[in-house]
Amino acid sequence: MPISKRAVSDGNARGLAAGLSPAGLDHTGGRGLGYSLRDIAEALGATVHGDADCRIERVATLADAKPGSISFLANRRYRPQLLKTRASAVILEQEFLSACPVAALVVPNPYLGFAHVATLLSPAQPVPSGIHSSAYVSDTAVVHPNACIAPHAVVEDEARVGAGSYIGPGCAIGRGVTIGDDCTLRANVTVCHGVQIGDRVLLHPGVVIGADGFGIANDAGVWVKVPQIGSVIIANDVEVGANTTIDRGALADTVIEEGVKLDNLIQVGHNVRIGAHTAIAAGVAIGGSATIGKRCTIGGAASIAGHLEIADDVHLTATSAVPNTISEPGLYSSGMPIQDNRSWRRNVVRMRQLDEMAKRLKTLEKKLDEE
Amino acid sequence: MPISKRAVSDGNARGLAAGLSPAGLDHTGGRGLGYSLRDIAEALGATVHGDADCRIERVATLADAKPGSISFLANRRYRPQLLKTRASAVILEQEFLSACPVAALVVPNPYLGFAHVATLLSPAQPVPSGIHSSAYVSDTAVVHPNACIAPHAVVEDEARVGAGSYIGPGCAIGRGVTIGDDCTLRANVTVCHGVQIGDRVLLHPGVVIGADGFGIANDAGVWVKVPQIGSVIIANDVEVGANTTIDRGALADTVIEEGVKLDNLIQVGHNVRIGAHTAIAAGVAIGGSATIGKRCTIGGAASIAGHLEIADDVHLTATSAVPNTISEPGLYSSGMPIQDNRSWRRNVVRMRQLDEMAKRLKTLEKKLDEE
Amino acid sequence: MPISKRAVSDGNARGLAAGLSPAGLDHTGGRGLGYSLRDIAEALGATVHGDADCRIERVATLADAKPGSISFLANRRYRPQLLKTRASAVILEQEFLSACPVAALVVPNPYLGFAHVATLLSPAQPVPSGIHSSAYVSDTAVVHPNACIAPHAVVEDEARVGAGSYIGPGCAIGRGVTIGDDCTLRANVTVCHGVQIGDRVLLHPGVVIGADGFGIANDAGVWVKVPQIGSVIIANDVEVGANTTIDRGALADTVIEEGVKLDNLIQVGHNVRIGAHTAIAAGVAIGGSATIGKRCTIGGAASIAGHLEIADDVHLTATSAVPNTISEPGLYSSGMPIQDNRSWRRNVVRMRQLDEMAKRLKTLEKKLDEE
Repeated sequence: MPISKRAVSDGNARGLAAGLSPAGLDHTGGRGLGYSLRDIAEALGATVHGDADCRIERVATLADAKPGSISFLANRRYRPQLLKTRASAVILEQEFLSACPVAALVVPNPYLGFAHVATLLSPAQPVPSGIHSSAYVSDTAVVHPNACIAPHAVVEDEARVGAGSYIGPGCAIGRGVTIGDDCTLRANVTVCHGVQIGDRVLLHPGVVIGADGFGIANDAGVWVKVPQIGSVIIANDVEVGANTTIDRGALADTVIEEGVKLDNLIQVGHNVRIGAHTAIAAGVAIGGSATIGKRCTIGGAASIAGHLEIADDVHLTATSAVPNTISEPGLYSSGMPIQDNRSWRRNVVRMRQLDEMAKRLKTLEKKLDEE
Repeated sequence: MPISKRAVSDGNARGLAAGLSPAGLDHTGGRGLGYSLRDIAEALGATVHGDADCRIERVATLADAKPGSISFLANRRYRPQLLKTRASAVILEQEFLSACPVAALVVPNPYLGFAHVATLLSPAQPVPSGIHSSAYVSDTAVVHPNACIAPHAVVEDEARVGAGSYIGPGCAIGRGVTIGDDCTLRANVTVCHGVQIGDRVLLHPGVVIGADGFGIANDAGVWVKVPQIGSVIIANDVEVGANTTIDRGALADTVIEEGVKLDNLIQVGHNVRIGAHTAIAAGVAIGGSATIGKRCTIGGAASIAGHLEIADDVHLTATSAVPNTISEPGLYSSGMPIQDNRSWRRNVVRMRQLDEMAKRLKTLEKKLDEE
Repeated sequence: MPISKRAVSDGNARGLAAGLSPAGLDHTGGRGLGYSLRDIAEALGATVHGDADCRIERVATLADAKPGSISFLANRRYRPQLLKTRASAVILEQEFLSACPVAALVVPNPYLGFAHVATLLSPAQPVPSGIHSSAYVSDTAVVHPNACIAPHAVVEDEARVGAGSYIGPGCAIGRGVTIGDDCTLRANVTVCHGVQIGDRVLLHPGVVIGADGFGIANDAGVWVKVPQIGSVIIANDVEVGANTTIDRGALADTVIEEGVKLDNLIQVGHNVRIGAHTAIAAGVAIGGSATIGKRCTIGGAASIAGHLEIADDVHLTATSAVPNTISEPGLYSSGMPIQDNRSWRRNVVRMRQLDEMAKRLKTLEKKLDEE
């Protein structure tokens, strides 16, 4: 009973339970009898400890769980909540099994296990098909009969929307845009002309794909716009968070490779390439023509300059500032954590004296050596 | 003649002057005769100095004021403008009274006094009722007859919109959303399914409430989406700035308590809780599951990591980076102010040598002690 | 054959080639025969090296160019690509001429030259005129017959839209807004009541102009809204990037002077003034009442406090934090570039000891002096 990757990653979990039909399963109203813990363990490839016949109907946090719920422990900060949980079962690592007061599913990655179980137990919303009467769809656009165009969406000339895709209320799909199958564009998303989007892509509200890059040339003090002729290519299984912006290329295209996950309010400049399966947290700014490798993780509020390369498997902690190419995989950081304001005021003055301090230190060392 | 808190805080000041009817008051065209300074002083509980009978028709800055205007001094930077102002009256603290060339209202908090006076004198725009013919409202949605649904707004199944609330052009209100009374959603706001919004909430254009949190679990290099099953609860009297995003909870809800004020382009991660009457300036990023206390103030472009707690009455200056829990109230800071580029280049090199410098300093101290 | 500045800067290049009619020019399908290199050189005032008769049909990067393409070299990082390019011609500085394997146009500013050539060669999309049947335009709004109001746009009472302007899908234009001639509002842009926009202004998707500034006054722990009565004035030839927000003034207006270029996701607080021809990269936060001079450039993710002044011709590198007035033109910086995480952890501890280190250094110096 494998759990379908495709359904999991499209963010809608439509048809997820297709291969799974335990007695009493009823997803339509959320009032179903759920699954036995044994069934879930099999789906996850997990070891059951405790009552394998108990019914699991929903997911919950350790603190909020009631009987019938399954919870998980993935961050040791929450261990105290494990001791008091009222969940029927908890997904956890071997290490915490002895502390678990209820049934347990032991897996190597409890958060991943939880992702699968939550997908199983979350009733998928049925997505209607067809074009709402208030939507505007150009005569030259091609919308799959199985796709859904919500009220007040706009689909311009020669755009294509694939099977099973959902274009939410107020979305604006520009001329010549291609959207693949099983995509979800939530609401008020803008996709500018010519952008190409793969399958199972999830765009949250307010996302803007394909606005002009920031290309300006200075002519004796006045800025002249550089036409942004490239486009944006978004590969399969990409998710883009609310109000994130991905600019079109100046000449070549901006490229987001498969499986990339972007959080909210991220800026992706023109001609950026983000490698497959890289994940970027909220508030990150990425300058034009930066190339980011595969499987990177980038913490919130980081900033990455333009015209540089970041190798595969680079990890940046939150607030990191990257001015130059990173050639080696690894964990990198910058930024200054808070202090009480009084200390900070004193220390920040010294920041401007660092070079001078270093020189004075050198002088002292020489003096002492000479003695 | 108390000034209505409710009307003040709903951002529309509808009906504010209901209990106030001085002769000649005419708010409809902005050409009314306004109020006497005495009336305003009474409304504020302020002491009048100078001509209490002078007519006040409008508010203005110290620099721009003309006769008939009332201005204020709340920041001593603007004291030079006080000396030259042409306002008919100025709201200020006792300390500046002797420097004021015109009539004055003395209050302990001039900015607050100004807030009340500006609300009195700003003609409230009448808000129409009813559903515009171009709006889409589901048959199963419940819209109070007194509410207004603007052109091209979308209200999906089972959503509820309370009395006196305004849903602006292009807003998308998802399935099962609840919006209380006297709320204002300006334009192109997205509220995702199931979100609950209290009374007198003001959402500026482009706000997104309830998009999926950034929940992903790694499965051998590929990200698996963790369903975001929680919702968002926004209490009464909350204001949210343009293009700010507040994600829905993963399991439990994201909660914004009463009276919270958020500026523009802020990211609020899943399962964050922001305590009552906390105010956050623009560009702040808040990681998932952070709990922020009551009555905090957070400066612009600050960043707050996830899974931490910030006590009540914590104040963070702009650009502060918070990596860990803050248990004590107080004023905290971080960040590095600008220097000329040349100095910065020299000093920034030394930042990477700080630990080594500290060790060399220690060595020198030992050497000198031994002598 | 001068290149029209107006057409270049309006971002649409409509009518650009009006004065230019070489044989065989066909812009409608992108399959035209283009221009001779000689014609282009004349348009730019450039010196031709190599075959002046070669046909140039399109622009491309050095790496992607094929015969018929013209490319450029503006950043010496890309010099290796020059050596291998298959472009028919390259725009470059004298310095690189000897390294160029194909025809060349020598100009002092190749990026500017490229901007002009790309504008010449990019087929301008024809912009339709008229109000789409699905748009909502108030009876009291005035839309020039030559303007275009796209599907599902909303134009409220007494708003004015000038000749040749395009209001994209889902845009919301508030009551009393003025939009000049030849403006482009791409999609889902919100312009709030009373905002005044000049000519040839380009607003990218999701931009919000004129939302309330963040004005709140504290009344015994509860925030009271300060009405935001001012507006926003945007001068001619301004470009604003996707999801950027520009707040309306509290009393006086927020002002964006002519030729200012703003990238994506920028916050401009209330009563900010940005001087003519200043360019600001993505993710910058500008506090209320900051005044920024003319011809400044501000790097990405910088932050600027409120109530300060920045002189003309100030340049800030990325991530700069500006807490106070900058009176002198020049290049300023702050921020801390990444290190490997292990080094950073060690060094960041020392940041909190800087003042103490400086004092210990001083003590050592005294001790040694006394010896």
